[in-house]
Amino acid sequence: MKRTHNCGQLTQEHIGQTVTLNGWVQTRRDLGGVLFIDLRDRSGLVQIVFNPAYSGEALTTADKVRSEYVIAVTGTVVKRDPETVNPNLPTGELEVRITEIEVLNAAKTPPFFIEDGVEVDETLRLKYRYLDLRRPEMQKTLLLRSKASKVFRDFLDGEGFIDVETPILTKSSPEGARDYLVPSRVHEGEFFALPQSPQIYKQLLMVSGVERYYQIARCFRDEDLRADRQPEFTQVDIETSFLDQEDLLGMMERLMQRLFRETVGVELELPFQRLTYADAMGKYGSDKPDLRFGLELVEMNDIVATSGVKVFASVIEKGGEVKCLNAKGCGTWPRKEIDDLGPYAARYGAKGLAWIQVKEGEFRGPIVKFMSEDEIAAIKERTGAEDGDLLLFSADNKKVVADVLGALRLKIGRQLGLIDDSVFKFVWVTDFPLLGYDETQKRYVAEHHPFTRPREEDLPLFDTDPGSIRAQAYDIVLNGYEVGGGSMRIYKRDVQEKMFKTLGMSDEVAHDKFGYLMDAFEYGTPPHGGIAFGLDRLVMLLAGRSNLRETIAFPKTASATDLLMNAPSSVEPVQLEDLHIKLALKPAADKKPAQA
Amino acid sequence: MKRTHNCGQLTQEHIGQTVTLNGWVQTRRDLGGVLFIDLRDRSGLVQIVFNPAYSGEALTTADKVRSEYVIAVTGTVVKRDPETVNPNLPTGELEVRITEIEVLNAAKTPPFFIEDGVEVDETLRLKYRYLDLRRPEMQKTLLLRSKASKVFRDFLDGEGFIDVETPILTKSSPEGARDYLVPSRVHEGEFFALPQSPQIYKQLLMVSGVERYYQIARCFRDEDLRADRQPEFTQVDIETSFLDQEDLLGMMERLMQRLFRETVGVELELPFQRLTYADAMGKYGSDKPDLRFGLELVEMNDIVATSGVKVFASVIEKGGEVKCLNAKGCGTWPRKEIDDLGPYAARYGAKGLAWIQVKEGEFRGPIVKFMSEDEIAAIKERTGAEDGDLLLFSADNKKVVADVLGALRLKIGRQLGLIDDSVFKFVWVTDFPLLGYDETQKRYVAEHHPFTRPREEDLPLFDTDPGSIRAQAYDIVLNGYEVGGGSMRIYKRDVQEKMFKTLGMSDEVAHDKFGYLMDAFEYGTPPHGGIAFGLDRLVMLLAGRSNLRETIAFPKTASATDLLMNAPSSVEPVQLEDLHIKLALKPAADKKPAQA
Repeated sequence: MKRTHNCGQLTQEHIGQTVTLNGWVQTRRDLGGVLFIDLRDRSGLVQIVFNPAYSGEALTTADKVRSEYVIAVTGTVVKRDPETVNPNLPTGELEVRITEIEVLNAAKTPPFFIEDGVEVDETLRLKYRYLDLRRPEMQKTLLLRSKASKVFRDFLDGEGFIDVETPILTKSSPEGARDYLVPSRVHEGEFFALPQSPQIYKQLLMVSGVERYYQIARCFRDEDLRADRQPEFTQVDIETSFLDQEDLLGMMERLMQRLFRETVGVELELPFQRLTYADAMGKYGSDKPDLRFGLELVEMNDIVATSGVKVFASVIEKGGEVKCLNAKGCGTWPRKEIDDLGPYAARYGAKGLAWIQVKEGEFRGPIVKFMSEDEIAAIKERTGAEDGDLLLFSADNKKVVADVLGALRLKIGRQLGLIDDSVFKFVWVTDFPLLGYDETQKRYVAEHHPFTRPREEDLPLFDTDPGSIRAQAYDIVLNGYEVGGGSMRIYKRDVQEKMFKTLGMSDEVAHDKFGYLMDAFEYGTPPHGGIAFGLDRLVMLLAGRSNLRETIAFPKTASATDLLMNAPSSVEPVQLEDLHIKLALKPAADKKPAQA
Repeated sequence: MKRTHNCGQLTQEHIGQTVTLNGWVQTRRDLGGVLFIDLRDRSGLVQIVFNPAYSGEALTTADKVRSEYVIAVTGTVVKRDPETVNPNLPTGELEVRITEIEVLNAAKTPPFFIEDGVEVDETLRLKYRYLDLRRPEMQKTLLLRSKASKVFRDFLDGEGFIDVETPILTKSSPEGARDYLVPSRVHEGEFFALPQSPQIYKQLLMVSGVERYYQIARCFRDEDLRADRQPEFTQVDIETSFLDQEDLLGMMERLMQRLFRETVGVELELPFQRLTYADAMGKYGSDKPDLRFGLELVEMNDIVATSGVKVFASVIEKGGEVKCLNAKGCGTWPRKEIDDLGPYAARYGAKGLAWIQVKEGEFRGPIVKFMSEDEIAAIKERTGAEDGDLLLFSADNKKVVADVLGALRLKIGRQLGLIDDSVFKFVWVTDFPLLGYDETQKRYVAEHHPFTRPREEDLPLFDTDPGSIRAQAYDIVLNGYEVGGGSMRIYKRDVQEKMFKTLGMSDEVAHDKFGYLMDAFEYGTPPHGGIAFGLDRLVMLLAGRSNLRETIAFPKTASATDLLMNAPSSVEPVQLEDLHIKLALKPAADKKPAQA
């Protein structure tokens, strides 16, 4: 009984036709000896009917089927009686009168209902992922992801990019996150590493003259996981030669435009907004600002440098800064609610949170009495404070001020309903600093990665002030999520050597780990640069979900466990012997408690 | 100086235009103060000219460039003088008169010439892979591979297949080849395994109702390598629900037809030939027969069962078989050449090789005197032996006879020039045995894998004669290479349990390793089956190459080494500590010699 049609694709035009359907029993209802089954396949649902009047033996068989049985049926498509039409179903005006049935496989009662919106513990969903994926919203997400990959490929192929696969068994590198390692059997005591990204390979492909490369590549990071991290993740990896940053950004905007058009039918306006890193941090307290709403941070230093509010003046004296966020309309909040912002701000490093309510044209609040009239007038003017507003002040070093007010901005934006969930708001953040200073390691670290090209005019700063070198690096931010990032790369050996040195890498280590790359730079390496998009996260946003695991067919938990297969798992001693390793377990007493 | 055109794409229509090119210096010649450079980019070559008459300062700069320098140039496209036209170059009637040049990067003299056909040690090529890939034939292969992947995707997408990514960090499985293992940091003493294929995941996707899945998937096997094996390889992985074997094979033939049409412009005739495993082994001594030529093996048992040639009679008595290969026209070979076939056959297990020359209508050779006239007449008739032919006989058990005559058939086919390299000859080999008996392990092993569905009518044989169960398994063979294979899968728990049991797996191991799969079979699993194509091998054949490494951008050597990055490599002690393992190296004296 071979399928002739898909359940969800039956329409008026099939009325009168004999069709054979294959699928799963969604629901069954017995109404006075007539059996109604909603039959489900990937395309959707259709109602099939077994009636003594025309179903004969098939009714007897059908009587035994239960939810999630797999069946094949043959019957005639008819129009339903008007009173039985189901307006919630695309096929709701039809039903199929069955004359033949074959049970292809039986099913036990599943541990949860196969339907959307059902409240199930995620642990159970992951253990029975093969049932969870049957739910329509999961099927839809799988389809969306497949479609998104296809659009990326079609666009890039059209622009002359070549899809090149790079190795998964590669070399451990000292920079970046922790590597997953793979012991070598052939080379005793040596290890492969799974790639954190195909970064070096794609640069070598540029050295190879490939000119335009892409790959939808699996990447691996052995880090403690957060809700939006997975130990293995997928990036759309892109690299070009001879293009400059502007060329590349423009091309990527067209890529995003096509992606959103062809997957969710949204027409993005080009060009995307641009913000320098400095502006993004200054105005939004974040290098991935959500620009679906305003609530910009306001500079206060010049106004409050000599303020009677001691903490303001002293912070500024010590080289810190004071900024203000005008939480429009929040001045009418009850005192308790305002006070609750303090502990929230503290999570982001704030030692305190000063605030002013605006009521009847007046500033009110504990700090107001320390302020001069000029100061109050200047603050009022610059923040545009009006009756009912709440001014929130953070005074600290730059980073804390950004973190605190950036977080409060998001919290208040959400609370005030300023965020339109139907909007996709892209912004490029550019001109990232090349290096950050790591106080723990007492050395500079690469903000993007050690292959990022400095701005030409900042090169002399390597010798005087490395921390202020600007990188030719950019992130693409969507609704407050970083969905991609990249840079122009270093392509000259002397600059790369300077970079490694500034990162505190000895010549020996640099040569051992990246010698081949620096060698490569000497054989005619073109100027090049690229970008990588986080596919999991992009699909999450396209699908309107808030958890990366919803976009991955077989994800791992926060403790990097595959609950379905029960991996990782113990292995046979002979397997370890072959790999020239043995276990080095901590004594039980010393063990950390197992992670959830 | 942004590129306006690609070197290889300049044509007559650009004559008179000012163009900017970016690329690499292929060659430079100085003819009396005029400098000719062949400039190369991904698209090809074009000659550019620096002449004091129009190049000015640019000539001074150009004078310093050497092979593989990266430059940007601007100039005017002109027609070459007729006597300087280069008919070997698509752009050979043109040259570009340069007025501006910028050196983007310098280059040392490369360790080998960047051109096709150059004889370079492969070790050197792999160490400098980024230069090796600049050679036009390597660029062409990369492009071909990218194109092939795209055609697979376009076809499968058009047929409603969904591209689903499955995990790389998965679970070690007891069947199959040796796993690559990845120690877990979070779960002490436990390991992930890299997948040998996404087999189980794709079956679970069928349980999930995905119905049509594909993925161009990386797979891993930690085996000793041969010329046509790599530790990581790529397969086009396909799985379907509700289709039977015939549906699937037909669809895959259309896929191959489109692939060959769109990559190499060859029109394959459908349907492909079919051979059962038994026929393939019987007629060609191979389960991956090269059908570009005939030379079929001929059954002799009935004719020589009572032969005076003792070895024939005794082999048959012991249940073995005798077969003959008529090497057409080889009867005139010098005796030495015929005798040399003996040692060749011995490599495939032959204890001896009997032969007969046909001369002037007569059989000649050492064994002829033991044969009766009837026997000779019967052999002559069945083999179609004519003057000048050479009959080669193998008498042994079935496997040795197939191996020996299968190998001789290929050798002689090649030697006689019977193989047309321009032909792509596909054949499906079907009805593989489900199980083979492993004499070392004293148990049955899965010929395909343990999830392969037996033919319905053979199911009772599990209890009586498992070795004779036929599988619903098929290989797709091209010119003697297996380029893909698959099967219909078991989808009922009781059959899967029987299979595991027959493989000697205890209930406990079966449950531990595959419990989730057998559980899944109880929740409404549709009939399903699929196939996987070896992308590396297919591209190798499409490109007319004979080494898998030529089709992979960054391949590993036969000892699983990445010569470019020098991986695998030693790692820091703290990395191992984090992973709860330590090295267990053999004492030096006990070490095996390092593999090449």
